Amino acid sequence: MYKYYTAYGSAVGRLLVAGLLCVLAATVAAEPLPSWRGASRDAIMAFVDGVTSPGAAQFIPPARRIAAFDNDGTLWAEQPMYVQALYAFDRVRAMAPQRPQWKSTEPYASVLRGDLEAALAGGEKSLLDIVMATHAGTTTTQFEASVVQWLDSARHPTTGRRYTRMVYQPMLELLDYLRAHGFSTWIVSGGGIEFMRPWVEQVYGVPPQQVIGSSIKTQYELRDGVPSLVRLPEVNFIDDKAGKPVGINQHIGRRPVIAVGNSDGDFQMLEWTTAGEGARLGILIHHTDAGREWAYDRESHIGRLDRGLDEGPGRGWLIVDMKKDWKTVFPE
Amino acid sequence: MYKYYTAYGSAVGRLLVAGLLCVLAATVAAEPLPSWRGASRDAIMAFVDGVTSPGAAQFIPPARRIAAFDNDGTLWAEQPMYVQALYAFDRVRAMAPQRPQWKSTEPYASVLRGDLEAALAGGEKSLLDIVMATHAGTTTTQFEASVVQWLDSARHPTTGRRYTRMVYQPMLELLDYLRAHGFSTWIVSGGGIEFMRPWVEQVYGVPPQQVIGSSIKTQYELRDGVPSLVRLPEVNFIDDKAGKPVGINQHIGRRPVIAVGNSDGDFQMLEWTTAGEGARLGILIHHTDAGREWAYDRESHIGRLDRGLDEGPGRGWLIVDMKKDWKTVFPE
Repeated sequence: MYKYYTAYGSAVGRLLVAGLLCVLAATVAAEPLPSWRGASRDAIMAFVDGVTSPGAAQFIPPARRIAAFDNDGTLWAEQPMYVQALYAFDRVRAMAPQRPQWKSTEPYASVLRGDLEAALAGGEKSLLDIVMATHAGTTTTQFEASVVQWLDSARHPTTGRRYTRMVYQPMLELLDYLRAHGFSTWIVSGGGIEFMRPWVEQVYGVPPQQVIGSSIKTQYELRDGVPSLVRLPEVNFIDDKAGKPVGINQHIGRRPVIAVGNSDGDFQMLEWTTAGEGARLGILIHHTDAGREWAYDRESHIGRLDRGLDEGPGRGWLIVDMKKDWKTVFPE
Repeated sequence: MYKYYTAYGSAVGRLLVAGLLCVLAATVAAEPLPSWRGASRDAIMAFVDGVTSPGAAQFIPPARRIAAFDNDGTLWAEQPMYVQALYAFDRVRAMAPQRPQWKSTEPYASVLRGDLEAALAGGEKSLLDIVMATHAGTTTTQFEASVVQWLDSARHPTTGRRYTRMVYQPMLELLDYLRAHGFSTWIVSGGGIEFMRPWVEQVYGVPPQQVIGSSIKTQYELRDGVPSLVRLPEVNFIDDKAGKPVGINQHIGRRPVIAVGNSDGDFQMLEWTTAGEGARLGILIHHTDAGREWAYDRESHIGRLDRGLDEGPGRGWLIVDMKKDWKTVFPE
């Protein structure tokens, strides 16, 4: 009897322990936003609970749960340079043999010499010239293939990681968390819409129709008899600053409930979002972690955050301190 | 025993009859596309079965099941004039007291005299002038309110119906049928994106983010301190003819599997769609029913269908004969 009991107890014990471990594991696995900590995490979860709990005063139906995310510096790193600019520089180098005049034409000559500072001395105009020269002329299909191929081989200059691994783990969790609470997640980036679409679904879970970005004009034509969309060297839309609410309206037709950015280029998106009726949440990611990522704000040429730091708190926006509020920065 | 059996049998019988009736009712209710008949209905259902049945050779995963619908003449009537033009004419009349110069300025003077033929004698240029004068200057919020208010009071000139009841019952069923098979349904119209968004979700089940259309430029600004999007009298995008594939790419970023239109303005959308790899379906609604709706095609100024009739069948597009293929046209 004792023996039986022991054997039985032992079996039950093992089952119980296994069961408890399972429950514990499930609890741990289901613990939301595991890479977040502190007041930012609490504030996000309290907001989401408040707008998604049935019967809550601030309840928002799923069709209106729209969350808009900037990309550069918000979902992935933008230092030492926007990833798309690095792609454009590599394209300049790859295309140079067919463009001998570039050796003596700025800003291409500086790019070819590897002097990126000189290449960008002309500011946005220089970058736009380079983007037009490297992003236009092909069909949309060819451009997509070029982006995919480049992302497959290119590595970040200081970390050696693939760029698609330079994404922020806490933001991947936030995207998942919001979708699990019925939100549709959108990218609203100053970067090129066609530069993002080939990879953001796999990396962020954001499908192409939920990507808003800057664009050049495209033209429909038959190329060798094949219906094609050809990319023209002409700006169609700049999805930055006051352009972000315009892009949001053009693509979504509804005001977001949550907007997340990291620079003054996102100011109007957060302003437009949080000016809506009912509960709204604006979030700014503040790059404070020189050890694990980069620390920059008011004086940075890339991702400058100045007005947002001054006015954000008074507007009720959540300022996320990357160093304090994130347990991890990049995925393992 | 017999009595018991009878009572039992009777109860069982009633349950069985009730059950059968339920099953029958459910079967009848679930019979797809009830307002369609004949070869068009068969072709649509065969195509949808072929791309949505697991294991089928032509199977397409839900994320890629995109169906694009023209609006004017495809989802609702466009005779004797595009509904949006009738809205613009009514706006001219409503705004005229504040625009005394319109009494002596074309095309407004003709609109105010009720001579719409003269008003549109200048062709697309006249219509564009009228649209700019009546669709710009307000905020997006004000414009939406104006459209909603107008649709609430306006009636179709020959049927006396609300315009939102001038939609085609078979197309409502087709939209539902495709969504029930995992398709996302999109509107790709030459009409104004902001003119459609206020009502298409309720009427067609298409949410604002799945509406693609022509647009004027908007500008983000603070109006009396309120963040606003102001509509400018400047064309942003014309979503017609070769513009439709461009608009589809801009908004969806993927090629549709199904495209449905009714005029040569939809030709390139069907061409682009059906040039994609794998199974694709192009559908043209041919207005052949002078009794229940209107009969028009090659010679019509509104919804001209000429090239599509010539080339569509050879391209494998389905030409829907409204008179033969639709049991009903408008909802009861």
